[in-house]
Amino acid sequence: MGKASSRRRRGFAYERELARELWNRGFACMRAPASGAKVRRRAQPDLVAMKNGVILVFEVKTRRREGHVYIDAGQVEKLSEFARRAGGLAFIAVKILDGRGWRFVPVERLARTRGGSFKVGLEEVERGFRLRDLEVLVSGGYRSLDEYLGQGKDTNSQKDA
Amino acid sequence: MGKASSRRRRGFAYERELARELWNRGFACMRAPASGAKVRRRAQPDLVAMKNGVILVFEVKTRRREGHVYIDAGQVEKLSEFARRAGGLAFIAVKILDGRGWRFVPVERLARTRGGSFKVGLEEVERGFRLRDLEVLVSGGYRSLDEYLGQGKDTNSQKDA
Repeated sequence: MGKASSRRRRGFAYERELARELWNRGFACMRAPASGAKVRRRAQPDLVAMKNGVILVFEVKTRRREGHVYIDAGQVEKLSEFARRAGGLAFIAVKILDGRGWRFVPVERLARTRGGSFKVGLEEVERGFRLRDLEVLVSGGYRSLDEYLGQGKDTNSQKDA
Repeated sequence: MGKASSRRRRGFAYERELARELWNRGFACMRAPASGAKVRRRAQPDLVAMKNGVILVFEVKTRRREGHVYIDAGQVEKLSEFARRAGGLAFIAVKILDGRGWRFVPVERLARTRGGSFKVGLEEVERGFRLRDLEVLVSGGYRSLDEYLGQGKDTNSQKDA
């Protein structure tokens, strides 16, 4: 098995892990087909999680401690378009491989690189939402992500979920 | 290829068709993995379609002109549980193979058979929602399915979408 294929399999394993984590927190989760790359490329994100009528849409990335996460511009556009159609919120879900768990970065916080793709910087990942924050977000306490980002930021720096 | 496998492939073709129809009407659509039967059995419906923050969850069935549609009790329970978690609405999507197109029967309208499974009778299929009704349902004109079923029924007997 080649490197790309092995990386791809690892990616699917983390998508499954995230789906399980969210399911255990009461979300309904829908994962994209692991096969059928053509269908995926067309439109579907890695994972959609829903609770209380709130729709969260994810692209899943892994990251070692050091280094940024780079995302193809087309992938970000498709993710945003899907969330816009659904009336949901789009996140880059970053699995940090040093044991610190998941961070969720709203696409609104992504920075454009000179090359035209998108980057999630080290600091943005650290500042990202945690699983606990997603639970608060769908609990009905906030009407929009803007409101959450504005009012709920402080909860963000607390202990991991 | 065996009969069951051929039927399964035909089922996927209709799931794709329905996803395309809803996508063309502005929905975000997420289909379950065609492979990975184990994952599917656990929890995922055939299709989730979302628009304006409204979540519609589907099991897809085909039906020739004559005859009812039977659905396994476990499948209905999983579909209902998924919709409950999501805060969405659950439907049996019936593709009528004589050219009349799609009908969508809310799980609340399913009848239990003596054997314990569920049945969608001929009349229930005829009375089912059409694509046009789903568009109205997510347009924000109705707050709940009950309200829609109560007030919107008459639109149901009009020309197909």
